[in-house]
Amino acid sequence: MQSAQTLYASLWEKGKELQVLKSISTLIGWDQETYMPKQGIGIRSMHKQYIEALLHQEMTSTHFQEKLSHFIDLDSGKFLSVQGLDDIQKAALREWRRDVVKEKKLPEKFVKAFAKATSEGTSVWAEARAANDFTSFQPHLEGLVKLCRERASYLGYKDHPYDALLDEYEPGMTTKTLDKLFAGLKTFLIDLTHKLSKKSVQADFLYGSFEEKAMLDFDYFLVESMGFQKDTYRLDTSSHPMCLSLHPKDVRMTTVTKTRDLFSANISSVIHEAGHGLYEQGLNEEWFGTPLCEFLSMGIHESQSKLWECFLGQSLPFWTYFYPHLQKAFPKHFANVSLTSFYQAINQVSPSLIRIYADEVTYSLHVILRYELEKALLEGSLQVKDIPQAWNDKMQAYLHISPKTDAEGCLQDIHWSAGLFGYFPTYALGNLYAAQLLDALQKRYPDWNAKVEQGQLLFIRDYLKEHVHQHGRLYTPDELLRKATGHSLNEKYFKDYLQKKYPV
Amino acid sequence: MQSAQTLYASLWEKGKELQVLKSISTLIGWDQETYMPKQGIGIRSMHKQYIEALLHQEMTSTHFQEKLSHFIDLDSGKFLSVQGLDDIQKAALREWRRDVVKEKKLPEKFVKAFAKATSEGTSVWAEARAANDFTSFQPHLEGLVKLCRERASYLGYKDHPYDALLDEYEPGMTTKTLDKLFAGLKTFLIDLTHKLSKKSVQADFLYGSFEEKAMLDFDYFLVESMGFQKDTYRLDTSSHPMCLSLHPKDVRMTTVTKTRDLFSANISSVIHEAGHGLYEQGLNEEWFGTPLCEFLSMGIHESQSKLWECFLGQSLPFWTYFYPHLQKAFPKHFANVSLTSFYQAINQVSPSLIRIYADEVTYSLHVILRYELEKALLEGSLQVKDIPQAWNDKMQAYLHISPKTDAEGCLQDIHWSAGLFGYFPTYALGNLYAAQLLDALQKRYPDWNAKVEQGQLLFIRDYLKEHVHQHGRLYTPDELLRKATGHSLNEKYFKDYLQKKYPV
Repeated sequence: MQSAQTLYASLWEKGKELQVLKSISTLIGWDQETYMPKQGIGIRSMHKQYIEALLHQEMTSTHFQEKLSHFIDLDSGKFLSVQGLDDIQKAALREWRRDVVKEKKLPEKFVKAFAKATSEGTSVWAEARAANDFTSFQPHLEGLVKLCRERASYLGYKDHPYDALLDEYEPGMTTKTLDKLFAGLKTFLIDLTHKLSKKSVQADFLYGSFEEKAMLDFDYFLVESMGFQKDTYRLDTSSHPMCLSLHPKDVRMTTVTKTRDLFSANISSVIHEAGHGLYEQGLNEEWFGTPLCEFLSMGIHESQSKLWECFLGQSLPFWTYFYPHLQKAFPKHFANVSLTSFYQAINQVSPSLIRIYADEVTYSLHVILRYELEKALLEGSLQVKDIPQAWNDKMQAYLHISPKTDAEGCLQDIHWSAGLFGYFPTYALGNLYAAQLLDALQKRYPDWNAKVEQGQLLFIRDYLKEHVHQHGRLYTPDELLRKATGHSLNEKYFKDYLQKKYPV
Repeated sequence: MQSAQTLYASLWEKGKELQVLKSISTLIGWDQETYMPKQGIGIRSMHKQYIEALLHQEMTSTHFQEKLSHFIDLDSGKFLSVQGLDDIQKAALREWRRDVVKEKKLPEKFVKAFAKATSEGTSVWAEARAANDFTSFQPHLEGLVKLCRERASYLGYKDHPYDALLDEYEPGMTTKTLDKLFAGLKTFLIDLTHKLSKKSVQADFLYGSFEEKAMLDFDYFLVESMGFQKDTYRLDTSSHPMCLSLHPKDVRMTTVTKTRDLFSANISSVIHEAGHGLYEQGLNEEWFGTPLCEFLSMGIHESQSKLWECFLGQSLPFWTYFYPHLQKAFPKHFANVSLTSFYQAINQVSPSLIRIYADEVTYSLHVILRYELEKALLEGSLQVKDIPQAWNDKMQAYLHISPKTDAEGCLQDIHWSAGLFGYFPTYALGNLYAAQLLDALQKRYPDWNAKVEQGQLLFIRDYLKEHVHQHGRLYTPDELLRKATGHSLNEKYFKDYLQKKYPV
């Protein structure tokens, strides 16, 4: 028993080194987005390359694998010699194995080819989007789709190659499950969108020239109200909002203050990033150095940001409390706008071309469209050259609108150029997880509404920490959800939420 | 020949990795001093430990040493097989050897013991200084002196153990040379101090409540006037001023704006740090990854900061140009203060207890005092327990004042607690180098005075870049100085400068 603990301890030491290395890499990325002098980009690339190579090297070191193999069979995942270890330690071993196996499955040659293709891909994509020229991007995308098929083969799958990619972002998720969830959702959302989009509301007061300092002050007020504690986080400005975590006690978010779009680009974004940030802060520090002190999946991460951004941050109780503060912060803009008008403006439902600006009803349709195209590309039932047409057909079918250009159509997102096939569905999953978690929270706190109206948000942070954050990768997403809500993922909670919020 | 170049190239690759690693370490340090949330200190320590261990491991890797040994005998420094390599490459090899040999000479066990003692030492020292209690620090300092003697033995020396420590900061410098330089300087400075300190001038306008934003704006104005280019540096605020370089294109300085002491704590400090910063920016980027893209010595580094801070930044031509700008920046404080009054106030000579606040005449006496004590401690002719008395005796002899407490006497500086014996003399060397370089510059530009009065400073930056910065570690400090000024280091330039500036 002693020897198992000693061996586990030395594995954990190595795990700490890996997590420290990831944290350093995050710091480097944060600095680049916030304070790096522009011409520092050269040395910055060298920083990144060095750390990434080292991480790969350390992850795949035979030393680490040998230690791990003592406890668990790397091929099958079966525990071998874990007498004396507790369930937490076994879960850590399970997740270490998951990471190592994935890292091992991809040959170094492939990893390099993939990195090269995505690095070139993103820069070609940026030019193609700017020039609205899909054909210049087409050969690169063809190469990337081929590489993603190879990736799926290396990673392995049972039913569908796309499952291998999905599993990278959402462990255990399959096309079979997604097809079922999305089928139930798609017609519902299409129907709701077209019923709601007939209503037009005034929203011009959300746009204009807002004082940057006042925006940042209000952002801080929001973030601290949500439960961030002084000296454990940062909120800086950058050209796009983000959240990076160096450690649960050092979480760094950014907000955009150079914008004329107060709600979407600033307020809503900062609530979104703070939702991500609270998840990172809620991880169990005591497990630092094991995968259990890491977030569970992209879908679960997105559920935390979406829950705060939309389900709470676009709710009437939330703004019943915060709107007077907003009016005080921007008297020129909101003194003569009622809470009702404001609430209607931030919840307007209307089909639009760009995913990131979509409202909470149409948003998931943008995601489902991408999922369907990705799956077809992986299967080979859709050719890259036919993407623009397929995209526009689906936009017409789901949202009744058509992009005039590919730049505002199939070229709008960076993901494909970066090889991130399998990532998009997690955005929609975030909404579904969030709705289901919120339902459980509301059952636990029937008076949640009245609390939020009084600006009490800490009970929400604490609930999410208890049921989601602190567990890290201890459970699978499905286990976590069943423990928290009593059920596996079901799209009905999201549908119920929308139906109640948007009566037609 | 091809094979020598190929081998050199692979050595350089490794050198680049080392320099990238140092740069990452610097970024981590910078973040800690500027933007890190306070509670991030835990993960920060892990970052540091990881990178430092890795650096030591890489520096001492047999792989690197074997490659280097092909070219140069590590023991003797004699070149072995360098046919086809140019002088630059040979210089790089020479300096790589210097670093590796030093790293090898110190056994890992000693390095760890030294790190532990200094880490404990600095925290005990901080408490001892706060409590004005030398006896609580005494046993730690005794241990540190013992370790420094061991350090000297490991590093090796010819005449005096202190030479081994000196060489770490000022390659090639010896007690023999220093004794001669300082002997010539000491009586001169003592004499000058007592002649000048009888004059009292008004300086109260330098202290007060200055607007932080205006301070920072003026700091930027100074720094950009000195020749920093946009997008290649940062200037942030921190609790003490500093300059850290990630790369010649990413140099980061900080300035103190939370102060009531405008000139010393803010303006003079920022000019000082910018002097350091210009040195780092002036290194030859093409040599990045070799020691030639690193600064030469602490004394040379300090010469660059001192030259800007005192020799220029406290000169009349400098303030002839900048004073009207200062008046405009702080009209409330300086509208009714003449340039002459300002100039006299910033150049007041008066014996004082604290080194870092000393004027340019007395400053070197503070350093000589420490040098004499350090040398005696290393020789064993002074016991640690007798430091307070020895300190006070020397203060009385040189400056005719006595500290009332050890906190403002022998406990004032952090260096000894951090094991930095041999470092102090470089502060005085900085003044001597600076005076000698300035003399050469003035001969090259007889109209330098008129140029500076018009705010032209770029010719100074360029001169220093040409004669000092760009060479990095290509030459020894002595070679560099002889190339730049025609002579080895001589204290007479500094004496001449002071005599001219402070007629008695």
